[in-house]
Amino acid sequence: MTGVAIPIRTTLPLTDLASCCPPGAGGVLDQASAERLATVLKALAEPNRLRLISMIAANAAAGATCVCDLIEPVGLSQPTVSHHLKVLTDAGLLAREQRGKWAYYSLVPDAMAAAAAAISPPADGRADRG
Amino acid sequence: MTGVAIPIRTTLPLTDLASCCPPGAGGVLDQASAERLATVLKALAEPNRLRLISMIAANAAAGATCVCDLIEPVGLSQPTVSHHLKVLTDAGLLAREQRGKWAYYSLVPDAMAAAAAAISPPADGRADRG
Repeated sequence: MTGVAIPIRTTLPLTDLASCCPPGAGGVLDQASAERLATVLKALAEPNRLRLISMIAANAAAGATCVCDLIEPVGLSQPTVSHHLKVLTDAGLLAREQRGKWAYYSLVPDAMAAAAAAISPPADGRADRG
Repeated sequence: MTGVAIPIRTTLPLTDLASCCPPGAGGVLDQASAERLATVLKALAEPNRLRLISMIAANAAAGATCVCDLIEPVGLSQPTVSHHLKVLTDAGLLAREQRGKWAYYSLVPDAMAAAAAAISPPADGRADRG
């Protein structure tokens, strides 16, 4: 049949999500790396969680954001907001710090950047076919 | 209560996903933009779909990839592979071209780049608070 055989590598760029490489840059994503990346993307793939992240990012200059300041803007109950923040924290995208009664959240920029890099297309649309 | 009030904007960076801006760069993601971005991320947030994308990206130098060449490497049935490719195509991440009996797929680099940019953290962790 037509088409080109696709090289499968045993060494892959995304053995660790933190070592950010676009999937097309050096080979084909192995199953374990794909599962790790999918877990992070699944945490992000929810509108309210994306809004919460954008609110925490918009507040980054002031430091970590109190969960108490997220409830009204996002328009959800406190337990629901806390659940979404827990999903993002468990995925490594947010850092959580308890200060007395309230939890404060900040972005983990490296984790966000690694996820972004992992889904970035190759710069020139070409891949190392070695 | 402690914490800093979060500015909510009426003009937002991600009114169109193609106009790529990190969520923290200029304000808080509105609901409609968050839903669009979540739809794209949900399409990506599946290990086999990520592997298929990485295979198509790895093959980009040779042009579009025949679905017939993806079945064996990804280790799934042809209907399952076609379903995953349809989800990615519907999300705007892949372009599909019918050539006789087989469909050929290529990345839509702008869509991948826009999704990546939308989840990229602000470069300096600071946001425009204007």
